[in-house]
Amino acid sequence: MTDQHATPGRSPHAPLITGGVVPPLCTPLTPDRELDVDSLERLVAHLVTAGVHGLFVGGSTGEAAYLPDALRRQALDVVVGTVAGQLPVLAGVVDMSTPRVVEHARAAAALGADALVATAPFYSPTHPVEILGHFRTIRAAVDLPLIGYDIPSAVHTKLAAATVAELAADATLAGLKDSSGDLDGLRDVLELVAGIDGFRVFSGSETVADLGLRCGAAGVVPGLGNVDPHGYVRLYDAAVAGDWDEALRQQRRLHTLFDLIRVAPTDRMGRYSSAIGAFKAALMLRGVIRYPTTSLPMIPLEAAEIEAVGKHLAAADLPVSTQ
Amino acid sequence: MTDQHATPGRSPHAPLITGGVVPPLCTPLTPDRELDVDSLERLVAHLVTAGVHGLFVGGSTGEAAYLPDALRRQALDVVVGTVAGQLPVLAGVVDMSTPRVVEHARAAAALGADALVATAPFYSPTHPVEILGHFRTIRAAVDLPLIGYDIPSAVHTKLAAATVAELAADATLAGLKDSSGDLDGLRDVLELVAGIDGFRVFSGSETVADLGLRCGAAGVVPGLGNVDPHGYVRLYDAAVAGDWDEALRQQRRLHTLFDLIRVAPTDRMGRYSSAIGAFKAALMLRGVIRYPTTSLPMIPLEAAEIEAVGKHLAAADLPVSTQ
Amino acid sequence: MTDQHATPGRSPHAPLITGGVVPPLCTPLTPDRELDVDSLERLVAHLVTAGVHGLFVGGSTGEAAYLPDALRRQALDVVVGTVAGQLPVLAGVVDMSTPRVVEHARAAAALGADALVATAPFYSPTHPVEILGHFRTIRAAVDLPLIGYDIPSAVHTKLAAATVAELAADATLAGLKDSSGDLDGLRDVLELVAGIDGFRVFSGSETVADLGLRCGAAGVVPGLGNVDPHGYVRLYDAAVAGDWDEALRQQRRLHTLFDLIRVAPTDRMGRYSSAIGAFKAALMLRGVIRYPTTSLPMIPLEAAEIEAVGKHLAAADLPVSTQ
Amino acid sequence: MTDQHATPGRSPHAPLITGGVVPPLCTPLTPDRELDVDSLERLVAHLVTAGVHGLFVGGSTGEAAYLPDALRRQALDVVVGTVAGQLPVLAGVVDMSTPRVVEHARAAAALGADALVATAPFYSPTHPVEILGHFRTIRAAVDLPLIGYDIPSAVHTKLAAATVAELAADATLAGLKDSSGDLDGLRDVLELVAGIDGFRVFSGSETVADLGLRCGAAGVVPGLGNVDPHGYVRLYDAAVAGDWDEALRQQRRLHTLFDLIRVAPTDRMGRYSSAIGAFKAALMLRGVIRYPTTSLPMIPLEAAEIEAVGKHLAAADLPVSTQ
Repeated sequence: MTDQHATPGRSPHAPLITGGVVPPLCTPLTPDRELDVDSLERLVAHLVTAGVHGLFVGGSTGEAAYLPDALRRQALDVVVGTVAGQLPVLAGVVDMSTPRVVEHARAAAALGADALVATAPFYSPTHPVEILGHFRTIRAAVDLPLIGYDIPSAVHTKLAAATVAELAADATLAGLKDSSGDLDGLRDVLELVAGIDGFRVFSGSETVADLGLRCGAAGVVPGLGNVDPHGYVRLYDAAVAGDWDEALRQQRRLHTLFDLIRVAPTDRMGRYSSAIGAFKAALMLRGVIRYPTTSLPMIPLEAAEIEAVGKHLAAADLPVSTQ
Repeated sequence: MTDQHATPGRSPHAPLITGGVVPPLCTPLTPDRELDVDSLERLVAHLVTAGVHGLFVGGSTGEAAYLPDALRRQALDVVVGTVAGQLPVLAGVVDMSTPRVVEHARAAAALGADALVATAPFYSPTHPVEILGHFRTIRAAVDLPLIGYDIPSAVHTKLAAATVAELAADATLAGLKDSSGDLDGLRDVLELVAGIDGFRVFSGSETVADLGLRCGAAGVVPGLGNVDPHGYVRLYDAAVAGDWDEALRQQRRLHTLFDLIRVAPTDRMGRYSSAIGAFKAALMLRGVIRYPTTSLPMIPLEAAEIEAVGKHLAAADLPVSTQ
Repeated sequence: MTDQHATPGRSPHAPLITGGVVPPLCTPLTPDRELDVDSLERLVAHLVTAGVHGLFVGGSTGEAAYLPDALRRQALDVVVGTVAGQLPVLAGVVDMSTPRVVEHARAAAALGADALVATAPFYSPTHPVEILGHFRTIRAAVDLPLIGYDIPSAVHTKLAAATVAELAADATLAGLKDSSGDLDGLRDVLELVAGIDGFRVFSGSETVADLGLRCGAAGVVPGLGNVDPHGYVRLYDAAVAGDWDEALRQQRRLHTLFDLIRVAPTDRMGRYSSAIGAFKAALMLRGVIRYPTTSLPMIPLEAAEIEAVGKHLAAADLPVSTQ
Repeated sequence: MTDQHATPGRSPHAPLITGGVVPPLCTPLTPDRELDVDSLERLVAHLVTAGVHGLFVGGSTGEAAYLPDALRRQALDVVVGTVAGQLPVLAGVVDMSTPRVVEHARAAAALGADALVATAPFYSPTHPVEILGHFRTIRAAVDLPLIGYDIPSAVHTKLAAATVAELAADATLAGLKDSSGDLDGLRDVLELVAGIDGFRVFSGSETVADLGLRCGAAGVVPGLGNVDPHGYVRLYDAAVAGDWDEALRQQRRLHTLFDLIRVAPTDRMGRYSSAIGAFKAALMLRGVIRYPTTSLPMIPLEAAEIEAVGKHLAAADLPVSTQ
């Protein structure tokens, strides 16, 4: 199928995705809700400099559910071009069902993604047998490592451990991004895939990342990693070194920082709006991106709420731009 | 409102959507899963001849969650061209959030749709205030009547009656397609919109269509209406005539026919696969479409299951093609 | 097993439960939350005089989930004694699982109930096979007609139509009380039990009672029937006479009256608190019961909210006591 | 607080509940489903000998949802009498709403329980304000330490961290038993109650007990602790000693052992039936209890399934009785 090495804009020597901190990138927007290319380039540099191990473009944190296809693809193109093979780039190919996902997958491969991240089908009711067919069809259509994305809060289906294990065993899936919050289930998966060489599990949590690593996850994909990549790198390094007390300290600090997603009241906006708004406000205050703009129909943070985000950053000793 | 008359490919005299039977069209596919244009044209003719009052392209029955954009648009284009202004064409613009939906809406308007049908946002968690903004943004972007699509089984959010009423009052929504199965909630909506001129409610149910009409719905959008449009037209005509006993008889007959969606066992495929598969098999057996092919990852019906569909048709006295 | 005819306090000639209006009785409490016996006797008289066809003690409207066993049993005893065989008395035997339900069932039989109403097991996860065993065990333990109670909002399991049909076919269940709001499912049940003599389906809805009867339900069990039994009797009589337009008019009037459950804001109490509180306030205002007291931890209505209940009564032309 | 010393049937020197391993006791039954008193006494001795730190009577593992009140109380009485003050005894007081729970609480106090464990209200819909009132009413009625029981799979409401913190701050709750599986939420609670002296959090999980302790939980309440109390004591001791690698090894071993709950196929019984059945079969094979009988309507394990339980025990090096 796709000869990945011939893909323009992609290094022939992109490292393998072996784990580590893989932030799901925010998608900086201009006030007109076009892609803010300069800001995205700065965000990539901010993360690479902090020592993260990969980048995930097109996840929930990246507003993938909102962005039109052209914007999704432009963002991926900018990231692949900016990172220039220094780090692997994972591309989310989130859509309702197989043929639509395959289209995104082909586009992502053409743009130079190193791996694909896909959920189970959603919207129309699905079935375990159909979920198997879904991932196998994607894998057969595009020759890139495929990572299953378990996010029941969005998809309203849990990827069963047995399903993941079956798809790992036949090499359909190269990994799992677990955003279910279910560490018990994560352990079931890890036990079932223990003998499968190279299969990698990533925890999608901001606040139990240390526990995921403790259970045997290879890496973490925290949205808050946009704001404080150094914190997650320290957490990950401590875990790799077996210094679980230090990992816990880092996690506690990040848990406290994560309260910035609650700066807006829940009668004015949903928690997702306030989380994405707070991440972007924090990146603006840190001098990384230019605007806090989020996609419609999310509600923007008010000035006082953005100020409150700044206080969370200060409390975490994160430098704020003085521009 | 819109100047519909300038839209290319659309009759200047398309009737207003006032109610009646508006089947959500199946999307006939070739064995390669391309659009089977001839079959779609025959399906339109089959429905128009039966006396339906409008056509809905791009709903769940039409596999909208599966079809790539190009295929969705081609199907709408074929239907608009075939129906040639004889009946209004409603276009589903189902996607995860506002900017993506607006893209579909613009495409549908350009292709000559007479109205748009949109759900609340899904995938990323949403909020009542954001739902209001979602529909208002779509309405402001594309000047066509906008119908809210309440399908909690897919969207995992119920469109609250108060939300619908607020969006009806400010003319954002021109109608509601209720596929929630919640007739109590339907009554709440109907009571709240009683004073709003021109607002139309459609029931999306195959099996309680008579009850929806009894409550004051203007029309019905039954997937089974592909297979037996005459049956739903008789049901609707009886309701309009106030002959509720006849409406009940028609509904009972259709309720029995609807069992054809259960020809396949639930351990082999999901109920959605078997329903779409059965509708398409029935249309093939009736000589309307050529293939029973459904989108991936749906599981195809086996020969014996297709035969069982034929028995359901025979039991309902529906003629089967002898070709 | 139980020789029902020997049960003290019960007429040997209690009519069979064939359908009609069967209100789920409120349980009047004193300010100390003891049973207010006089008020309960007046409530029974109020309902009997209005022409209802049976009484249901121990349902959700009766605060069954709150009442200690002694209070539950005292209430049933008072009702059986007061009604004195004029009408059948159905006893709710709601509890988490089979052995606990059997205890309630034995107590209810000893007190002279004419039939039992039981849900599927809840709290601990259950399974279709276990649900079958549950009802069969209850039926074998106590020789009274057993009615299945389908209330997924409380039990978090839907009684599948196939389960009901299987339990109807082997004479475990004599009927179904459907409080699921799912008229589509109700139709499935009615179709499956069509050939089973004597099986009765009751709709538990206040606001789609007419539709349930239209589908073939034998009776209705509306909580609002405490407040306005005459309204539901008129609705039922119209349905029996085949005057569906009159049934619809009665239902619309009752739908409007039912808004009294919304007199309290949802940030101050749950909707269940405000519904039970409003029913009791209405009965107090109508001179039927003495106090509006509800069980802990329900929040009491404030004076202004009780006044608002009075306005709903006045708008429905329901006489208010001038005492 | 309470004068515990005056409670009849209770040692004057029962230790405070400070944490550790607190197994939720199985309730041994005779084939006639009476309490098997001898077996229960042996189970208590088995656990005490293994070095557990407390006993929890009346939880889900104890079939509390099934047992009639008399049986619940008899079990508590036997345990309190057998343990004779050596260890604290926590009594579950699970029921649908406040007045019913208060009755259980009074009975438990009279029988000598050292603390009470109560869920939020269930069955009838509830509300955060009502949940606060629920726990405060129980606490005011019975002067024993009260532990909140968060088990959304049974109660269908999640105890919000803010609710727990508010009830901890005003000394309504002395602790939390978290059976939600949500370690992220557990961390939120632990952060909010960090400054409240003496508040204890217990993890109710078999398979992420180590992670709960890692987050700061004071103890664990694993159903599998009936079968292998030594394993959980080793896990707990390792955690207390800060030897997290050893805690992880113990947890992995117990995770593997826990597969014994899957000896029966899910089309024959629910997972709860097979879990309770497997625990009891294991205890029988280990020579602790006499019969594997479970409450109706649970489905009993077949002989081959009991044999499979034995293989899980053997694989975990747990001695099986040769009687």
